[in-house]
Amino acid sequence: MSADTNNPPPRKDLLDIDSLSIEEIQFILSNAAPFKEVFTRSVKKVPALKGKTVLNLFYEPSTRTRSSFEIAEKRLSADVINFAVSQSSVVKGESILDTIDTLQAMKVDYIVVRHGASGVPNMIANHTKASVINAGDGFHAHPTQALLDAFTIGEEVDDFKGKKILIMGDVMHSRVARSVSTICNKLGMEVGCFGPGTLVPDFRHNFIQSFKNYEEAEEWGADVIYLLRLQLERQKSNFFPTIREYHQQYGINNDRFKRIREKGTMIMHPGPVNRGVELCDSVMSYERCLINQQVENGIATRMSILFWLQPEIASLPEELES
Amino acid sequence: MSADTNNPPPRKDLLDIDSLSIEEIQFILSNAAPFKEVFTRSVKKVPALKGKTVLNLFYEPSTRTRSSFEIAEKRLSADVINFAVSQSSVVKGESILDTIDTLQAMKVDYIVVRHGASGVPNMIANHTKASVINAGDGFHAHPTQALLDAFTIGEEVDDFKGKKILIMGDVMHSRVARSVSTICNKLGMEVGCFGPGTLVPDFRHNFIQSFKNYEEAEEWGADVIYLLRLQLERQKSNFFPTIREYHQQYGINNDRFKRIREKGTMIMHPGPVNRGVELCDSVMSYERCLINQQVENGIATRMSILFWLQPEIASLPEELES
Amino acid sequence: MSADTNNPPPRKDLLDIDSLSIEEIQFILSNAAPFKEVFTRSVKKVPALKGKTVLNLFYEPSTRTRSSFEIAEKRLSADVINFAVSQSSVVKGESILDTIDTLQAMKVDYIVVRHGASGVPNMIANHTKASVINAGDGFHAHPTQALLDAFTIGEEVDDFKGKKILIMGDVMHSRVARSVSTICNKLGMEVGCFGPGTLVPDFRHNFIQSFKNYEEAEEWGADVIYLLRLQLERQKSNFFPTIREYHQQYGINNDRFKRIREKGTMIMHPGPVNRGVELCDSVMSYERCLINQQVENGIATRMSILFWLQPEIASLPEELES
Repeated sequence: MSADTNNPPPRKDLLDIDSLSIEEIQFILSNAAPFKEVFTRSVKKVPALKGKTVLNLFYEPSTRTRSSFEIAEKRLSADVINFAVSQSSVVKGESILDTIDTLQAMKVDYIVVRHGASGVPNMIANHTKASVINAGDGFHAHPTQALLDAFTIGEEVDDFKGKKILIMGDVMHSRVARSVSTICNKLGMEVGCFGPGTLVPDFRHNFIQSFKNYEEAEEWGADVIYLLRLQLERQKSNFFPTIREYHQQYGINNDRFKRIREKGTMIMHPGPVNRGVELCDSVMSYERCLINQQVENGIATRMSILFWLQPEIASLPEELES
Repeated sequence: MSADTNNPPPRKDLLDIDSLSIEEIQFILSNAAPFKEVFTRSVKKVPALKGKTVLNLFYEPSTRTRSSFEIAEKRLSADVINFAVSQSSVVKGESILDTIDTLQAMKVDYIVVRHGASGVPNMIANHTKASVINAGDGFHAHPTQALLDAFTIGEEVDDFKGKKILIMGDVMHSRVARSVSTICNKLGMEVGCFGPGTLVPDFRHNFIQSFKNYEEAEEWGADVIYLLRLQLERQKSNFFPTIREYHQQYGINNDRFKRIREKGTMIMHPGPVNRGVELCDSVMSYERCLINQQVENGIATRMSILFWLQPEIASLPEELES
Repeated sequence: MSADTNNPPPRKDLLDIDSLSIEEIQFILSNAAPFKEVFTRSVKKVPALKGKTVLNLFYEPSTRTRSSFEIAEKRLSADVINFAVSQSSVVKGESILDTIDTLQAMKVDYIVVRHGASGVPNMIANHTKASVINAGDGFHAHPTQALLDAFTIGEEVDDFKGKKILIMGDVMHSRVARSVSTICNKLGMEVGCFGPGTLVPDFRHNFIQSFKNYEEAEEWGADVIYLLRLQLERQKSNFFPTIREYHQQYGINNDRFKRIREKGTMIMHPGPVNRGVELCDSVMSYERCLINQQVENGIATRMSILFWLQPEIASLPEELES
């Protein structure tokens, strides 16, 4: 697993994209490729994390992300403990920090955490020697999603520099938008966004161009259109009138897809897709729709991240092993 | 693990009994025996599926079947991911086919699926390179149950040919009855059935004899009585008057059990048993009651099935393995 | 893993502390130390239970105890099946004994069981060849908690003999109190207890001194104060007026903690802690507060217990293994 870049020293935690250097990003991406190659083998497994305990601590329900991590962990030969909230002491009112003390005492090596409140993974990371991976926190960050997306774009383009990505949808409330726009900017891409007026971001990131309508965005000419998942339950808050109208204005409808296909623009989406909302059915079978590629790369990228992080738990040499 | 039969080429999926040839059935049964022998060892495990990922996708709750599969998978050294519905994106309204695309992208090798609607496993099998095993779909089929039942009968009889099996209970709504009757017929057994008038099957299978009352069925003289589990929640639909009456008319009550014991008729049941409904308590300790044997054989038979099926996922030779 | 004591012959089950001899207790404790040492290694894993199936059968929700067992089992290389009640056939009304027959047929080697009713683990143990470990049953016993607590005290004192432990809280309804007091008595410690009048135990164990008020207990001079978790949901039953009053009278408040710190008294708690109820916040960072040490020792002690127990399932030598 030689890498083109100089190997950056390992970190304890992965909490957001902002704190990663370009060298660290490139190192994670370059190591994801050999892990992806493992999936083509008969034995899709490497012994890298044998004897390590990884705890998946999900305070929000999730299928894709949790399963992606669980498969990544098992393909690294780790011992995996799933800690879903409904089964946990949260019911008994235990505080997060007391939970973390418990996990630390259990000598857990890695904690993968998803939480509805921004900053919880950072707080946990500060209180444990285990490596903490942010699997999505509130509106804040979703760094493993951004890394797998960058890896996916990197498989399709020769050079990130100067390429354009258009992020479409509820950008303001999206941790995915936040992390994806940041990594694309770091890699030298131009970032634009477009969504319902009520959802246009008040971003501190001045690197993001905001478009008033789809025509303006279309004229800009993106290489990648990145669709955000619409949180259907949020419609109640009247962010937009109807699902149908959302699709026509802020989704990839048949008309728009025709022109996208002509230009060969790539389509991405973090999943799961709402068909007929963010995109029309025909997008799903479009050859430059990278959604399934993102899923496969999710496992490889997460293996690369777990492989790179280094818990602070002191370890004796393995010679004592029985 | 040499077999007496010619080895049939591996299949990708196991969806029902109808599509299996007699050679394939015999091959699965003959391979289950050496897997059962593994359970008598100190290390109850073989490396056959090391590095393969098996996903258990249960849209209906289940203890026995899911645990049986999970133990079988772990005893084959596979990596196991459980995907219960309540934890899954089903909540978010994701379609089954999009879920399958995701699983395919994750390079899952085997998908064990249970679903309340007939035909879902077939649909999934058509859309993935992974091997799909039907763990029960609607009123349609439950092929692994039928195979473990056939293996269990095979341990007790010298030859299937000419032996008689009587299937008792709600035959019409039973995927178990459908699959068990089919496999028994293929193996040369005579198949009869008996149940409440409202539940008598409108079977296309003309090989099944239907009896009007228990006396008629008793006179026929079964070697095996196969009791179907009564879905107690279905009583509301007024299929029959009371549980007590069901037991007296369509269950093995004390009186009937006395004559069954004299003849040495075997008793089978897919479990879990409703004591006092399908059978009286004393049946459970009867030496020719094969219910627990069915459970043990369930794991061995499922190991044999997983071992035989062949996903279409391309694999490089293992020499690249680290 | 040599032990200072003579090795007692292995038992099938661990159901309570009463039935353990002092030699057995000392053997379990002395073997826990080398297992704890495993956690300092790079590979935190030993192959002792490779190819064995351990089933965690939890009829009551639990995070800490279940996770502690699961990590212990995986660090012994066992195959682990979790059987939470909500997923299980209990919904379908299956009896516990039929469940046990099923598990026995599945050739499960170890069953770890928690149940709300006293005696359920004993009943299960009588009906299976698998080793049964009581992970807490009703008001009866919680022997693995008591063993890990004894191991924790043993790390801190040169000799158990003559040391004093004060158990505080709802002693009457506590399986923890029952098991901890018994093991401390067997190890030669003096045992006292103190709690709300309505909760003072009607113990058959005449070895326990009961104190009327905290001052009396304080004067007695404990080496260890063992706080029981208050079941907050029990307040409805009016065992005591308010949480605040409970804390002032039966918890470690700031005032009491000041004197405890001066004397260097050890503080223990089975977790999870209710801050501001059983103890004030400052206790959690006290250097002689052993709560996190208890958590770590929980895994090591459970590994030692699993390692010692011997299922009755017959095993062929491993030479047949493939």
